[in-house]
Amino acid sequence: MQLLIIGGSDAGISAALWAREIDPDVDVTLVLADQYPNFSICGLPFFLSGEVPDWRRLAHRSREEIERHGITVLTEHVAEAIETRSNEVRVRYGDAERTLSYDKLIVATGATPIRPPIAGLDTAGVYVLHTMDDSFVLNERLRTARSAVIIGAGYIGVEMADALTHRGITVTLVERLPSVLTTVDPEFGALIESELTSHGVRVETNTQVDGIVPTAGGVRVGGPGGFSIEADIALVVVGVRPNGALAAAAGAMLGYAEAIRVTPGMATSLPDIYAAGDCVETRHRLLKRNVYLPLGTTAHKQGRVAGENAVGGAATFRGVVGTQVVKILSRVVAGTGLTAARAKDAGFDVRVVESISPDHKAYYPGSSEMRVRVIGDAATGQLLGGQILGTWGSEIAKRIDVFATALYHGMRVDELVDLDLSYTPPLSSPWDPIQMAALAWTAGDRTLTGTLLHRVTGSTA
Amino acid sequence: MQLLIIGGSDAGISAALWAREIDPDVDVTLVLADQYPNFSICGLPFFLSGEVPDWRRLAHRSREEIERHGITVLTEHVAEAIETRSNEVRVRYGDAERTLSYDKLIVATGATPIRPPIAGLDTAGVYVLHTMDDSFVLNERLRTARSAVIIGAGYIGVEMADALTHRGITVTLVERLPSVLTTVDPEFGALIESELTSHGVRVETNTQVDGIVPTAGGVRVGGPGGFSIEADIALVVVGVRPNGALAAAAGAMLGYAEAIRVTPGMATSLPDIYAAGDCVETRHRLLKRNVYLPLGTTAHKQGRVAGENAVGGAATFRGVVGTQVVKILSRVVAGTGLTAARAKDAGFDVRVVESISPDHKAYYPGSSEMRVRVIGDAATGQLLGGQILGTWGSEIAKRIDVFATALYHGMRVDELVDLDLSYTPPLSSPWDPIQMAALAWTAGDRTLTGTLLHRVTGSTA
Repeated sequence: MQLLIIGGSDAGISAALWAREIDPDVDVTLVLADQYPNFSICGLPFFLSGEVPDWRRLAHRSREEIERHGITVLTEHVAEAIETRSNEVRVRYGDAERTLSYDKLIVATGATPIRPPIAGLDTAGVYVLHTMDDSFVLNERLRTARSAVIIGAGYIGVEMADALTHRGITVTLVERLPSVLTTVDPEFGALIESELTSHGVRVETNTQVDGIVPTAGGVRVGGPGGFSIEADIALVVVGVRPNGALAAAAGAMLGYAEAIRVTPGMATSLPDIYAAGDCVETRHRLLKRNVYLPLGTTAHKQGRVAGENAVGGAATFRGVVGTQVVKILSRVVAGTGLTAARAKDAGFDVRVVESISPDHKAYYPGSSEMRVRVIGDAATGQLLGGQILGTWGSEIAKRIDVFATALYHGMRVDELVDLDLSYTPPLSSPWDPIQMAALAWTAGDRTLTGTLLHRVTGSTA
Repeated sequence: MQLLIIGGSDAGISAALWAREIDPDVDVTLVLADQYPNFSICGLPFFLSGEVPDWRRLAHRSREEIERHGITVLTEHVAEAIETRSNEVRVRYGDAERTLSYDKLIVATGATPIRPPIAGLDTAGVYVLHTMDDSFVLNERLRTARSAVIIGAGYIGVEMADALTHRGITVTLVERLPSVLTTVDPEFGALIESELTSHGVRVETNTQVDGIVPTAGGVRVGGPGGFSIEADIALVVVGVRPNGALAAAAGAMLGYAEAIRVTPGMATSLPDIYAAGDCVETRHRLLKRNVYLPLGTTAHKQGRVAGENAVGGAATFRGVVGTQVVKILSRVVAGTGLTAARAKDAGFDVRVVESISPDHKAYYPGSSEMRVRVIGDAATGQLLGGQILGTWGSEIAKRIDVFATALYHGMRVDELVDLDLSYTPPLSSPWDPIQMAALAWTAGDRTLTGTLLHRVTGSTA
């Protein structure tokens, strides 16, 4: 049995490893366009910040380790066409062409940075960030750059604002929407903006960019209404789009946002072909429809399902609830489920409560303020989302995972109060901050005794 | 409507606050035997360690704040008898007696330290730790004490070993069982023992104590087989037993471990009388029977249910899964569900896997080794328990809460892999350590490719 995999990032490698795990006799060949199989692309901001000085450490595992698992790795092999009649893939390697045949094929071609409608994107001094090679080019320039404009304040934009600030570079962060990091509610976006600003980042929201022109030492970034700023470099990080073209050319159905349509078993509409990772649609458990939400966690899960099923398994990808966490300077912000705006768009009767509690008992040294937002449906009581903002080191990432696990199970907000969560004074409170927020949410229009609904302190039981 | 509550700790105060929350017209009177309503007894080790210099800070809220909620607080009032025919409670206040009548009564009389069968427990220099007054007496003695023997290595014993070590006192920790902290598996117990030992604590497991005698400056603690050790003080912390006598004398049914039997609505077997907290039985969701597991988290929940129902509500206490977390010096250990031994006793076909992963991507600074134990039923795949041991600051407490939430929902081990948990390189990995452990568990007798089953490293997908 010959399993061919196109793509050497999270989904492709995960698929290869799991196929071999399930069926040690399967021949697995993995082709990738560059020479960096299995690198942690999520780690690029930390390489560029200088916190991870050696880029080689970003490898989840080495090429040798992958090959030790019995996987043939062909680097710098660009897949050009899938021939579904003959079960073959045409591949270019430098100037050479090769044809690789398959019994089963897994497409894990990932995504490409979106090129927004900005004139001058190819100006010297304008960078994107998606591949190892992108990061090497940028890193070289950062050795001498003193200032940068980051276009796009999604999670990579804010991580890069952190990274470049860490490196001593003056950063302006430009976002066309009214708020940074719209994966969380604007109330949290405003606080993240404050965190950035207090560390010297200039943040320009509600700001369109329509052109970039070269200057003597760098670039000038401009937009309607006279917006103009000069810097040594511009970094364009406005999101990614799925690389579905290869599969589509072979006849695969595309779906949401032109991502490859897949079944819960990660099968495409073509025989013998699976797909996984940033090139496919993702099932959203709360929206009960497919969305496009490319993340490493999802790519690993989908790759595993595709790899298992390609060798005869019957695994199912259970979908996402939309969990994310980002560290921004001294703060961490995490969210899962639907934001208030998305929940409203989806037709829910949205009620949001934000509560503020110490992350652990205030009498024990080192406690800090933690904000928890609970988004629920006022009519049914269903939990729709949770968001947490606080200090790095106060267990925010894994607290959001309690919300994520609750969402997976379709819990009501009031049921969160029944969870048997851990407590010791240095690490939480008898009612965890999540439960304080749930209690406040449940109180609804009542104010909790002696407190404001929107400011539930740790001293309220 | 007159609601009377006996007990001013977590359960009693929680009941009082929630009764007033639900029904602002109810008259609430709360009697307590000492003068410290609503203190965080879980915080005593941190007062005694010196980390919380002012004991007043241990109050969850002040007496004034409680009274502002419309609750009448009678301190130093000892309830002596419940008269169920007349709906009255006889109370002693100093030399005076009073009779308080009630429409509804909540018994939240808490627990008392167990006095083990050791001769000489009343010797000067022998201390227990359960009340604020206990801690004042002990704290006074600790000003000059240089050495201490702690008898009992449950979670209070190990917290006190930490606390006294922090204070510069030489500690010997004595435990009659083969392992410290038997709320987790002995493999973790051994590692906790190492942590204690490496900080200078002498740990004596498998060691019985049968007598304590006074010496010139302190005490000598001895046991069969010639065990003998001298120290300035001995601290006896071998657990607590429920204070069910008051309710029992009035005719209330007792249950497991002589704790007061209650319905899921926290009603006792007597009309108009509820009970909550350390004096009652607790429903265990996995064992599907009542146990005795006195904890602050549970007391808060049960108090809330009792308070709500006493004023006509229909709340239900959903039971516990057995979640606990303890900080011990530089380590944190957490557990939920059943230990391997308890799961076996309960008749499950127990399979345990321990995996070791970095708490976050190893390339990002500050990662540390995290051990995760998954306990499941090999026949059905049901998740039975989880335990995590690692470094303080690596989100162990709230990671165990993912297990706790999964247990609440009766998940199978393999389903943990489907959870959409958060990831960013400074805080986790694409497969969270919990999921790595679940993958290893699911692999069962297979070894995961290229790794040992019992040592799954972060580099395995």
